[in-house]
Amino acid sequence: MIKEIIEGVKRPDVEVVVKHLSRGPDHLEYHYYEHIVSDEVLRMVREAEKEGFDAVIVGCFYDPYLREAREIVSIPVIGPAEASMHVAATLGHKFSIIVGRRKWVPKMESNVYLYGLDRKLASFREINFTVREMVRERERLKNAIYEEAKRAVEEDGAEVIILGCTMESGFAKELSERLKVPVIDPVVVSWKFAEMMADLYRKTGISHSKLYGYEPPPPEEGWLT
Amino acid sequence: MIKEIIEGVKRPDVEVVVKHLSRGPDHLEYHYYEHIVSDEVLRMVREAEKEGFDAVIVGCFYDPYLREAREIVSIPVIGPAEASMHVAATLGHKFSIIVGRRKWVPKMESNVYLYGLDRKLASFREINFTVREMVRERERLKNAIYEEAKRAVEEDGAEVIILGCTMESGFAKELSERLKVPVIDPVVVSWKFAEMMADLYRKTGISHSKLYGYEPPPPEEGWLT
Amino acid sequence: MIKEIIEGVKRPDVEVVVKHLSRGPDHLEYHYYEHIVSDEVLRMVREAEKEGFDAVIVGCFYDPYLREAREIVSIPVIGPAEASMHVAATLGHKFSIIVGRRKWVPKMESNVYLYGLDRKLASFREINFTVREMVRERERLKNAIYEEAKRAVEEDGAEVIILGCTMESGFAKELSERLKVPVIDPVVVSWKFAEMMADLYRKTGISHSKLYGYEPPPPEEGWLT
Amino acid sequence: MIKEIIEGVKRPDVEVVVKHLSRGPDHLEYHYYEHIVSDEVLRMVREAEKEGFDAVIVGCFYDPYLREAREIVSIPVIGPAEASMHVAATLGHKFSIIVGRRKWVPKMESNVYLYGLDRKLASFREINFTVREMVRERERLKNAIYEEAKRAVEEDGAEVIILGCTMESGFAKELSERLKVPVIDPVVVSWKFAEMMADLYRKTGISHSKLYGYEPPPPEEGWLT
Amino acid sequence: MIKEIIEGVKRPDVEVVVKHLSRGPDHLEYHYYEHIVSDEVLRMVREAEKEGFDAVIVGCFYDPYLREAREIVSIPVIGPAEASMHVAATLGHKFSIIVGRRKWVPKMESNVYLYGLDRKLASFREINFTVREMVRERERLKNAIYEEAKRAVEEDGAEVIILGCTMESGFAKELSERLKVPVIDPVVVSWKFAEMMADLYRKTGISHSKLYGYEPPPPEEGWLT
Amino acid sequence: MIKEIIEGVKRPDVEVVVKHLSRGPDHLEYHYYEHIVSDEVLRMVREAEKEGFDAVIVGCFYDPYLREAREIVSIPVIGPAEASMHVAATLGHKFSIIVGRRKWVPKMESNVYLYGLDRKLASFREINFTVREMVRERERLKNAIYEEAKRAVEEDGAEVIILGCTMESGFAKELSERLKVPVIDPVVVSWKFAEMMADLYRKTGISHSKLYGYEPPPPEEGWLT
Repeated sequence: MIKEIIEGVKRPDVEVVVKHLSRGPDHLEYHYYEHIVSDEVLRMVREAEKEGFDAVIVGCFYDPYLREAREIVSIPVIGPAEASMHVAATLGHKFSIIVGRRKWVPKMESNVYLYGLDRKLASFREINFTVREMVRERERLKNAIYEEAKRAVEEDGAEVIILGCTMESGFAKELSERLKVPVIDPVVVSWKFAEMMADLYRKTGISHSKLYGYEPPPPEEGWLT
Repeated sequence: MIKEIIEGVKRPDVEVVVKHLSRGPDHLEYHYYEHIVSDEVLRMVREAEKEGFDAVIVGCFYDPYLREAREIVSIPVIGPAEASMHVAATLGHKFSIIVGRRKWVPKMESNVYLYGLDRKLASFREINFTVREMVRERERLKNAIYEEAKRAVEEDGAEVIILGCTMESGFAKELSERLKVPVIDPVVVSWKFAEMMADLYRKTGISHSKLYGYEPPPPEEGWLT
Repeated sequence: MIKEIIEGVKRPDVEVVVKHLSRGPDHLEYHYYEHIVSDEVLRMVREAEKEGFDAVIVGCFYDPYLREAREIVSIPVIGPAEASMHVAATLGHKFSIIVGRRKWVPKMESNVYLYGLDRKLASFREINFTVREMVRERERLKNAIYEEAKRAVEEDGAEVIILGCTMESGFAKELSERLKVPVIDPVVVSWKFAEMMADLYRKTGISHSKLYGYEPPPPEEGWLT
Repeated sequence: MIKEIIEGVKRPDVEVVVKHLSRGPDHLEYHYYEHIVSDEVLRMVREAEKEGFDAVIVGCFYDPYLREAREIVSIPVIGPAEASMHVAATLGHKFSIIVGRRKWVPKMESNVYLYGLDRKLASFREINFTVREMVRERERLKNAIYEEAKRAVEEDGAEVIILGCTMESGFAKELSERLKVPVIDPVVVSWKFAEMMADLYRKTGISHSKLYGYEPPPPEEGWLT
Repeated sequence: MIKEIIEGVKRPDVEVVVKHLSRGPDHLEYHYYEHIVSDEVLRMVREAEKEGFDAVIVGCFYDPYLREAREIVSIPVIGPAEASMHVAATLGHKFSIIVGRRKWVPKMESNVYLYGLDRKLASFREINFTVREMVRERERLKNAIYEEAKRAVEEDGAEVIILGCTMESGFAKELSERLKVPVIDPVVVSWKFAEMMADLYRKTGISHSKLYGYEPPPPEEGWLT
Repeated sequence: MIKEIIEGVKRPDVEVVVKHLSRGPDHLEYHYYEHIVSDEVLRMVREAEKEGFDAVIVGCFYDPYLREAREIVSIPVIGPAEASMHVAATLGHKFSIIVGRRKWVPKMESNVYLYGLDRKLASFREINFTVREMVRERERLKNAIYEEAKRAVEEDGAEVIILGCTMESGFAKELSERLKVPVIDPVVVSWKFAEMMADLYRKTGISHSKLYGYEPPPPEEGWLT
């Protein structure tokens, strides 16, 4: 599904490759599950760079292990939440994020702080769906998102809606039309953001700073194989 | 100069048109000067939409009249400071902005607040150049930027440098290499951001929210001709 | 109406002159409308200084073009929102602002940030009135303000109410008595604030800083005629 | 000295009464000393109201016992720091406060937070003077203030200077002229602020909110005699 | 009651002494009442140090006169609100504080700001009880706390509940079980925090900094007898 | 070394067990190195709970994997940075953290934000030591800490110093005496904090909230073995 959505919005001169994890849970709602997959995720990020990819997206709205990933590669590493929020911040006064369960909010809100965008946040709104239910019940999911997004707009003053899970992807266009505000699909927007960053990287060499925070481990210590 | 820089980084399938103001001061260091040109700027923005452009950049790092412009058109209106800061925010822990004179700081810092990014700001650093001097003394300008950017990196902990004037454009690549941190050229980055937003707009219809803050004046009131 | 209200509260030794714009929309709900009148507003501010006035109030709760106005004159330029909020901040823990429509909130909330007072803000509350309706339906307006102000006090913990439009002027006394909290009429309070600033200016020379942010354009550049 | 300064700036129709404490330390640099005088200060505030005064200023830049005082009277109670900072906030982008010793900073900075104005604060700058030295060595005091205020302007970007002790009063005019920025004398500005609040109180009844934070003790409990 | 609760949680090797005020109001809901008792409170704090106690708790959730007390003794002075909030901050993303009346909120919220923890605060929730009613109607009190705490958890996203009055003590265990979140009893937690600080003080000498903010009055000035 | 330090401050009735990692880098300066050890760290945390320990400290000032650890056990999990900062926050107006290299600052400053304590932070100060150098050159390390801590106190206004690495442990007492401010040893303070939390947990059942953020993975999903 992810690939199909990206094919519909990508630049014609860019190739999209969607890679799935070979093991681990089928969802990442728990932070321990992020940990379980982290080893494979970070290995994939390194391989992507070695295989010549110009940018990589870690496809989960928790933006897991961005810090670690940016430390070990030079190509841009995109977080769907980070990219979505920065784009949303330019589209209106405040945005709301529609999440599956309140369980997700503390880490995601912590990310909003770390990205510096808490003053642009109108609210988190939850729809009471697990990721598994999101996959199975697409029509009920769409309606639930619509109802909470509507409340976010009317009660919280949100001018922009962000779908806070890659599994909420696919409804943005219809929801934008019904809600009369831009609805950010994190799969779509992180893809376009990655295209921009890859293009900047190829043409100007700009990518994540390697000074201070993302300074890579020294090769001679031998841990980055 | 601006056009040449953009030609070097633009997507091959995108057309760049640089428009100059027909009257007014040759620089916008004073907010009253921004006012003087505002009428023509806003008229040009409207014309750009009518002529079928997919996005427009208002080419000054003060991001003048973004709010007014976004109220009166539907295509994305890009501010060079806003685009540069949001991209820079994804590239490192904190960024510093190199400005010509301290005169510029209050409005630009106010914009940092309004964009929500004050926690990502390491510092403003000034080089004591007017815009006119920037245009005339390019080599001295480059060296002055280098010196202050170096201090921003070493003393203020900046991991990313933003050139805080479109007249500082053209040096980013060399400065990045010397400083070992990404240096954001606002002309380049706002152009790539505009390409991304134009692409998103064409393919998904997403642009600035027209609800609340950017709600346009009603045509029947007759003021938006 | 404005003049009558001010006559009731002004110092006996101060003269009040209310000037109306000669053209433009009959309300400023849209930021583009602020732009339309900006040229005449700024010209009037300059004339006021030349004619010997000791202070000037720009009579709209958006505080339009304060930055530009303070750059081009030396006398104090008062914004009704800025004056009202700073006085309200000294009267209680938090204040709420009663606005006509949510359209107004993004710019006004941005001003709250820029004035530094977001931590003193309990809430914005909207009454769903256009400015035109405010002018026409005074009794319904008063009741609507009362209802939302009551909610602000009871639900949002506001200890002070600010009427967020000069067109809401005239009800503060009655509302204060019914609500049992101070209600700030921006026309009244910005007038008293202007009296104070004019007095300070005449007696001590204190007015807006002309260093950095409000540094005026150099006369020799010839744009400030 | 205080009275003389106020006589020079007061409205002709306002009477100024300066009351001194009958006992306690000759300065309030220590918070325990504020405590020592608190009983007499609060009694004086109550008496001022009973004697028909329209406003009262508690003359110390720590703004001691504002909360308690506002709880037990209805007339406006003015804090010199609070009034000075709110006025300064309207005069420029950021202000610096010149204090005698760093000892004073934690409480004063806490007040800046509580007044909501931390984003308007450029810096505290200390001159290494006790209050007693301030009283004795006026010329050295003036020069020390000038030196630190100059650094605040040049290094910290302050556009406005606040003299952070009522004992620094008397130099504002000369310092403004030499520094080319407005210098706020807390004695002068809190007086003018008090005049404004007294006028508002008499004409419109507006004073500190008596709901929630400043709700007065019930007379029937018998503690407010 | 306080003593009994502490006996149930204290370390076996620590002695607990609960001292009551000899005069003054039977509750401290009004800030003027805090003032009335401040003299005796500060005298008791000094005596505690002289009598060899290793730490002292000022037993009111307003944390009255912490600054003054820390200035005049070297042993740790614990504020129940401060200790409770810092511990709560480590137990979950956000906490809510259950207060008797909204009257209490402004000062307590100011303390949250001063302790730096406003971003960890989900909400204040009030139950409409005076302290006297809390003492008399224990069962109704417990139910009222439960109802508002439940709303804090479900509506405000609180992961931790703090009982915002020492008179709400005694219910934490039962409420924790019913609410399924940790409920902080300020009597219990400030006691354990005091034990920790006393232990640190005895073993490492660490207590409140005596530099700057808590610098004590010089003995030679003779006011600290 | 760690064990010896703790033996010197621990309660007599508490047993200390220090566990070392069986593999991985000998320092954790790089976030990728934190990742390398995360699997063993989280396994050890789970085992500690199974073996009946009452609290566990993850011994690195980056506070690695607190969120994941708190999700999978019920006993208190203590982060040395978190515990040190919350205690420091109660000891003075602001604290500074002495780090080895600026590399460490972005993640540690992010933690300061997430713990909500950025307003209590005076500065980070770096001494230009790797962890390996810290281990080898103890005397030079102590002097370097002293020099930067002195600057933090004199230039940044820090009233409390936190040693920002467990390898800086052992010098706190001497430094406190020389600097005249409390110096927080994270090994000592996190140990005392852990004792307090373990005691609270045993006696009242209070530990990290299991609602929302730390909600554990459901056993039936089978990933938490």
